[in-house]
Amino acid sequence: MSASPLIDRRHLEFALYDLLDIERLMRYPRFAEHGRETFDATIDLANRIAVEKFLPHNRKSDLNEPHLVDGRVQLIPEIGEALRAYNEAGFTAVMADVDDGGLQLPFVIATACDALFAAANLGTSAYPALARAAANLLDAHASVDQKRRYMRPILEGRWFGTMCLSEPQAGSSLADIATTATPQPDGTYKISGAKMWISAGEHELGANIVHLVLAKIVGAPAGVRGISLFIVPRYKVAADGSVGTSNDVRLAGLNHKMGQRGSVNTFLKFGEQDDCIGELVGQPHHGLGYMFHMMNEERIGVGVGAVQQGSAGYLYALNYARERRQGRHPDQKDASTPPLPIIEHADVRRMLLWQKCVVEAGQLLCLYAALQVDRAHDPDPAVQRDAALLLDLLTPIVKSWGSDSSLKANELAIQVLGGYGYTREYPVEQFYRDNRINPIHEGTNGIQALDLLGRKVMQQEGAALKLLFAAMSDTCLRAGDDAELRVHAQQLQQGMRRVGEVTRVAAQRMAAGEARDVLANATHYMTAFSTLTVAWLWLWMAEAASRNLALDEDFRAGKRQACRFWFATEFAQVEHAARLVGEVDRSALDMRPGWF
Amino acid sequence: MSASPLIDRRHLEFALYDLLDIERLMRYPRFAEHGRETFDATIDLANRIAVEKFLPHNRKSDLNEPHLVDGRVQLIPEIGEALRAYNEAGFTAVMADVDDGGLQLPFVIATACDALFAAANLGTSAYPALARAAANLLDAHASVDQKRRYMRPILEGRWFGTMCLSEPQAGSSLADIATTATPQPDGTYKISGAKMWISAGEHELGANIVHLVLAKIVGAPAGVRGISLFIVPRYKVAADGSVGTSNDVRLAGLNHKMGQRGSVNTFLKFGEQDDCIGELVGQPHHGLGYMFHMMNEERIGVGVGAVQQGSAGYLYALNYARERRQGRHPDQKDASTPPLPIIEHADVRRMLLWQKCVVEAGQLLCLYAALQVDRAHDPDPAVQRDAALLLDLLTPIVKSWGSDSSLKANELAIQVLGGYGYTREYPVEQFYRDNRINPIHEGTNGIQALDLLGRKVMQQEGAALKLLFAAMSDTCLRAGDDAELRVHAQQLQQGMRRVGEVTRVAAQRMAAGEARDVLANATHYMTAFSTLTVAWLWLWMAEAASRNLALDEDFRAGKRQACRFWFATEFAQVEHAARLVGEVDRSALDMRPGWF
Repeated sequence: MSASPLIDRRHLEFALYDLLDIERLMRYPRFAEHGRETFDATIDLANRIAVEKFLPHNRKSDLNEPHLVDGRVQLIPEIGEALRAYNEAGFTAVMADVDDGGLQLPFVIATACDALFAAANLGTSAYPALARAAANLLDAHASVDQKRRYMRPILEGRWFGTMCLSEPQAGSSLADIATTATPQPDGTYKISGAKMWISAGEHELGANIVHLVLAKIVGAPAGVRGISLFIVPRYKVAADGSVGTSNDVRLAGLNHKMGQRGSVNTFLKFGEQDDCIGELVGQPHHGLGYMFHMMNEERIGVGVGAVQQGSAGYLYALNYARERRQGRHPDQKDASTPPLPIIEHADVRRMLLWQKCVVEAGQLLCLYAALQVDRAHDPDPAVQRDAALLLDLLTPIVKSWGSDSSLKANELAIQVLGGYGYTREYPVEQFYRDNRINPIHEGTNGIQALDLLGRKVMQQEGAALKLLFAAMSDTCLRAGDDAELRVHAQQLQQGMRRVGEVTRVAAQRMAAGEARDVLANATHYMTAFSTLTVAWLWLWMAEAASRNLALDEDFRAGKRQACRFWFATEFAQVEHAARLVGEVDRSALDMRPGWF
Repeated sequence: MSASPLIDRRHLEFALYDLLDIERLMRYPRFAEHGRETFDATIDLANRIAVEKFLPHNRKSDLNEPHLVDGRVQLIPEIGEALRAYNEAGFTAVMADVDDGGLQLPFVIATACDALFAAANLGTSAYPALARAAANLLDAHASVDQKRRYMRPILEGRWFGTMCLSEPQAGSSLADIATTATPQPDGTYKISGAKMWISAGEHELGANIVHLVLAKIVGAPAGVRGISLFIVPRYKVAADGSVGTSNDVRLAGLNHKMGQRGSVNTFLKFGEQDDCIGELVGQPHHGLGYMFHMMNEERIGVGVGAVQQGSAGYLYALNYARERRQGRHPDQKDASTPPLPIIEHADVRRMLLWQKCVVEAGQLLCLYAALQVDRAHDPDPAVQRDAALLLDLLTPIVKSWGSDSSLKANELAIQVLGGYGYTREYPVEQFYRDNRINPIHEGTNGIQALDLLGRKVMQQEGAALKLLFAAMSDTCLRAGDDAELRVHAQQLQQGMRRVGEVTRVAAQRMAAGEARDVLANATHYMTAFSTLTVAWLWLWMAEAASRNLALDEDFRAGKRQACRFWFATEFAQVEHAARLVGEVDRSALDMRPGWF
């Protein structure tokens, strides 16, 4: 079979330049040195490294998972080679200031590049993604000295980073973490505790690992208000930045996963010998807020990685369906006619079109969210504020809808390949396994739904929702010139009214003390909201593609057809799920544990 | 964590005795010697063997997949030990005539036992399931001599069986098979060709393997009307039944699967040395019809196995959610209160209730379908006819809905366990991988949907549909006494009207030559039909549980709550999917290959 591309570049460029018009970013002083040429060259370079250095060992990583040799984590050597190429090309510091040795590129371009690395090899791309997010957190919240000693080595690709939140007894419930920090006379803290599910928690890829650890200073308030953030390096770091001896962080075990096996996942114990030193980041008891700087970047990253597994599976299945011949149309009874490429079968076409819908909308959604990060550099405070609100609102949708829908896309990619798709001789089963973690980590999708309904749409009297709906209304207005798209615009407006209505009902009833009942339907709210959002994205794509006559005719027709398909087959979920929220359905909540 | 049971025995007995009233089967002469005592004792025995012999090596099978040693397939020894225990307990011949050494039990009891073996170990249970189905095919269609020489050794557990349909160039498209059969002077045939995806195609578990092979006699008509069925043993079998030398069936390769690794899956080549002898079963060119005897049994078996993976995951996740403590209610801000068992969280409860809904309805659906096989022994030809129609109608739903919904159930079981669910230290990730084949094999779910809409509901002017709807109407009538259930009965009746309407539209438009357009929405039809059917099953369960005051109070309340949940959260799909069918939606069909 001919090779499938790593990404649909036409769609990527359509999203970046036609829809998001990212060339506007050059008006900001931070990005003034850049232009479409540097953006495209960066994406080209990412594509080349992804194809040459990340893709070839994706299956090998799966078959040779990290293991211990003489107490050290052994990875296949290709991972280190890929990361060296990545770092030498500047991707570790792609967003960092030029003064810090970075390329000072927008996050939206970094996200497009991330998409390529994730499509090629999700496991390997986890290491630099965590390192970069750790550096970004330190850039935002650490002291000048901490940045010099911990952030710079990460940006230079010499060290790596992790985020240490979960503990065995408290997976998602950070209020219950038990890791402690005891103040020392020199201003540092002794750290003691255990952290679970730590990706990239131990390996020999760099000279040090900067663990960013949530812990409670002895005597701190109970719950999340008592959480502080600490820099806890694997090896102690002297004042001059030199690396010393072990910092008493012990690898207590490796987790053996269904997929994403290339990314080592660890159970770590801190301070068993009472010799684990941490440095406080920022103020005591404000650690959760700082950590969310990293967590939110990772949530977008999870969405990007998930959507790209969906994309990789889709492009592979599409290619397969065009080449594999089997069967005939149901009204063709003459067995002497040649078999058809299976893309001619309506149900195969349906499965591919569903994948196209969620993959291309998912990519646009991720880039749109990433662009809001860059708009923080706008000189206008109102733009900054709006961008921050939109980013906050979109983050749980990117993470949750991105991962749920792309997992389903991978399920359909396997189905298109039939029995072959179920074998390890083809890549789609690995995409499916690798992708299955994405609805779980960095806050389960259930938690994302609580975040969306309980917090994000409620903040500032629904200010974020109003902004998003204003963007949707703009699209509806532009679509009004087109007889067919006008009908979809009307559907979208009706959906916005319904989601708006049930959001108000939810707000009123939560204010009336019924939060538990209302939030019991948070996942249905997420379904309604994300289905509506994706419908908007498709209307936007269809409208923009129709308007731009310079685009390829087939490309434009495909966008319109996918828009038609989403409204025909998926949009009804908006009304159904919104109804459950509006009625405060209790059918799950009322179930008693003894009744199962 | 405390161990979860292999199956919810209360639900199984409720289904068998309260709902299906299988004790009525004792009125048939074939089953007159049996009674609830022998049924229960058989299920007890199956449970014991499943727990003691099948369950313990489920993970070991996954970690040690079949491989070649000196050209022979090597399985872990526990598989052979499990099958010996299975055979010694009489399960190989559980349905066979007493005269053939069998237990002459109904298929519905065999299915309940299959459920236990499949819940314990799907891979190992594939071997006897194929053997039994091969024996049943031979019992129905082979000559007396063939039964003596091939069926008896299978029933005695000495030999095994396979079904050989697919070929590398023609997976689902049997019209295009290229395996040939050349008549020999002695009445046998020389077989030549290649067969792909053959489960249990080669192993050393027994002294011989009876391959049931579809092939075309030289000069046969093109397409499926030219297919004949042959008995092709691995080792030649003499007139006295003794096993001779190799029959020139060569193992050309093993398929390496994502899951169900204990069940060896092979690529076989027949007659490379021009020395592969086959015996014709029945009449030439009627092979596909005979094979469907086995295929239909396997389709029910796929549904049973899939639902039981769903069940195993559900029971494990339920147990976990009752014991694992984490987090608090969203309105509980006091972090000094103890964490709750996660079953108290509404979204966890929703995920468990969804699993309960599809697992318990799925088990009832499988048993209901199996009961139709037994009703063939009714002395009344009208009952026989009705049972055959219902079985035909239900088979694609059991296979397709059973496998799709239980895969989603496994996805949710992983989600309930969170990160732990993604690791190989817990069993749910294996259930998910093992289950992923079920929407593919024995006819993909897309093919099942074509079978349902294009054939099963159309046959004999919708006779099967009328029978099923009559059963649904009975339930609605009985539910009318209960104020709450009456509302669901009205919803169900409305759903029946809608499905009936769109079935008529489909019939008319197919008759008008629009089969290709109509069948493009076959999967939506399957969604509408199966969601409706499951709603009926829940109304039936809720009504019967409410009526039977002897049942445990919690058990009864759980059935009512699950019924409420299905109608509240899933039933809307009936209308939505039916609308797409009725409108002959073209949004997928109109997509052109070049537009993707």
